[in-house]
Amino acid sequence: MAGETVLVQAERLAGFSRRMVEAAGVEPGKAKLVADCLVHANLRGVDSHGVQLLPVYIERIEAGEVDAQADGHVVSENGAIMLYDGENAIGQVVSDACCVHAIRLARRHGLSMVVARESNHFGAAAFWGERFSRVGMIGIVMCNASPIVAPWQGREPRLATNPICVAVPGPWLLDMATTTVAANKLYKLAAAGEKTIPAGWAMDKNGVPTTSTEEALRGMMAPLGGYKGSGLEVMVEILCAVLGGGAMSVEVGGIRMHDRPSRTSQTFIGIDVARFMPVEEFTARVEKLVGLLKSSAPAQGYDEVLVAGDPEWRMEARRRKEGIPIEAATWQDLLNTAARLAVEAPPAQKSTTA
Amino acid sequence: MAGETVLVQAERLAGFSRRMVEAAGVEPGKAKLVADCLVHANLRGVDSHGVQLLPVYIERIEAGEVDAQADGHVVSENGAIMLYDGENAIGQVVSDACCVHAIRLARRHGLSMVVARESNHFGAAAFWGERFSRVGMIGIVMCNASPIVAPWQGREPRLATNPICVAVPGPWLLDMATTTVAANKLYKLAAAGEKTIPAGWAMDKNGVPTTSTEEALRGMMAPLGGYKGSGLEVMVEILCAVLGGGAMSVEVGGIRMHDRPSRTSQTFIGIDVARFMPVEEFTARVEKLVGLLKSSAPAQGYDEVLVAGDPEWRMEARRRKEGIPIEAATWQDLLNTAARLAVEAPPAQKSTTA
Repeated sequence: MAGETVLVQAERLAGFSRRMVEAAGVEPGKAKLVADCLVHANLRGVDSHGVQLLPVYIERIEAGEVDAQADGHVVSENGAIMLYDGENAIGQVVSDACCVHAIRLARRHGLSMVVARESNHFGAAAFWGERFSRVGMIGIVMCNASPIVAPWQGREPRLATNPICVAVPGPWLLDMATTTVAANKLYKLAAAGEKTIPAGWAMDKNGVPTTSTEEALRGMMAPLGGYKGSGLEVMVEILCAVLGGGAMSVEVGGIRMHDRPSRTSQTFIGIDVARFMPVEEFTARVEKLVGLLKSSAPAQGYDEVLVAGDPEWRMEARRRKEGIPIEAATWQDLLNTAARLAVEAPPAQKSTTA
Repeated sequence: MAGETVLVQAERLAGFSRRMVEAAGVEPGKAKLVADCLVHANLRGVDSHGVQLLPVYIERIEAGEVDAQADGHVVSENGAIMLYDGENAIGQVVSDACCVHAIRLARRHGLSMVVARESNHFGAAAFWGERFSRVGMIGIVMCNASPIVAPWQGREPRLATNPICVAVPGPWLLDMATTTVAANKLYKLAAAGEKTIPAGWAMDKNGVPTTSTEEALRGMMAPLGGYKGSGLEVMVEILCAVLGGGAMSVEVGGIRMHDRPSRTSQTFIGIDVARFMPVEEFTARVEKLVGLLKSSAPAQGYDEVLVAGDPEWRMEARRRKEGIPIEAATWQDLLNTAARLAVEAPPAQKSTTA
């Protein structure tokens, strides 16, 4: 998928994004939060959750589908448990508040769980997981989303890609959708004219596993590894939506459904590592585990063993230095939004590497 | 895999098992716990974690590889967090104590996490998860085990099948290994003379995915769905062994490694549902979600949508009524152990259905 792209430095991209969100009537602190969250995903190479979302975010705010003035409120705080009502506020605003509460409660009790309902798209979960790992905690972050996946043995969409993120103080970070791959990967192969996709990616419209790109496009993404991935999707739905009293399954809207609020639920669990051992010792133990994994001879066709987080941290180091490549169509979308909001675009360098 | 089996009523099988464990020098309460745990797995159709383990359990106890006299002790209780040292006691004894503590702490704080190190095989995780769901809590149970799975992109065993169990007050129960399938499934196909296995089950000795039964037997089981399953395996290793200060990866022994203690770690998380909403309301919401999933038309080749827990609960209802079928070789193993310990076997009905 190499093509014409522009290269933008991360700080410039974040500033540009922030000014656009502000120009849409969002107060500066909230606008900065949204911009930083999206650019963080771009830095990590997770472009599906980066600034390409910005025009959609801004449209939803302008249309009043997301309430940029709302902050959400605490419904109840009860021991180490908090229930939060997002009041249809910007997802990053809700998540920021929930992380602050979860960290405070985990400091007090050793462990905490904050569940938000009536929230919106919060970007990539890793951005929130790292809030915890940066302060010596393990952070577990999950959310539900629009139903685009069939339940196991079914053929109609009832579940979302429901991601699970676990961040720890140490060189390992998991942030995964509970489908085998993101829908984006299918679209990219289709756009590249590939007739077949790997086994396990998708189901046809009858709910039968398929390797035909065309059938997959008319069907649905497959849960990770089959019935177990489907079980993980339901687990996330229960720990977020069922427990928080929010919208579940087909009740959830989505970032591209313009007739109703998203009503997303998000769950934040904090574990205070220091209650088990000094954080430095824990980090050394994570490093030891990662070392044991990497001591395995690589499988045929690979140069080394990688653990969760490695590809993204390497990408982040590279993009911080070289800039963030943005596909031409995405950049044009951003420029159009900027022009409409009378926001000046930063200098961007043309590039032909993807 | 139909063959000659015997049918034994669950209560008789549990009594027989308990008497054998007692005869091996284990006090009655502990012996009952082990017997009930294993028979519970048989009832649910999870025969790999049922009484077939009993002769191995007893050998380990007799050899002093597991300390049947030990109970383990609390290393620290700190807010909602507890660290427990299993002192190489019977895994079910350690897990029973940890569940009691986790439920007590979750009642006090809303949420709790108990991590045990230096433990032993605890049977199927669902037995422990249900301790929580029966008292209106969500229970999350995980453990590590012997390294038999390569890390992603590797070819040497570094991780275990590391199961994750989530039990809730409602009609859904997840208990899954983080490999695509249990190693047992591969052995069964091999024993039945099948030359090929489904894609995604296993890797050959070079770490390359294979569908050859022979290559798979010389290789390793594959993580669920690839790199994401590998990430989940590491997550469990971190939340159990790294956090609890126990044995990790290649440091872990196993039920069939006779030269050293197992040094298994186990983690028990309790969530007090009543801090969010009345338990009855939560259960009704789980039922609603399950109903939404089941409202999907079934995929081609299926009659209905099933959710996690359905197959096992149906099996349990059937086996409680009809008795538990035990393969002839397993039954002979049990009879041999019983004869050696001078324990009388219960009446068992011959059957030819598997």
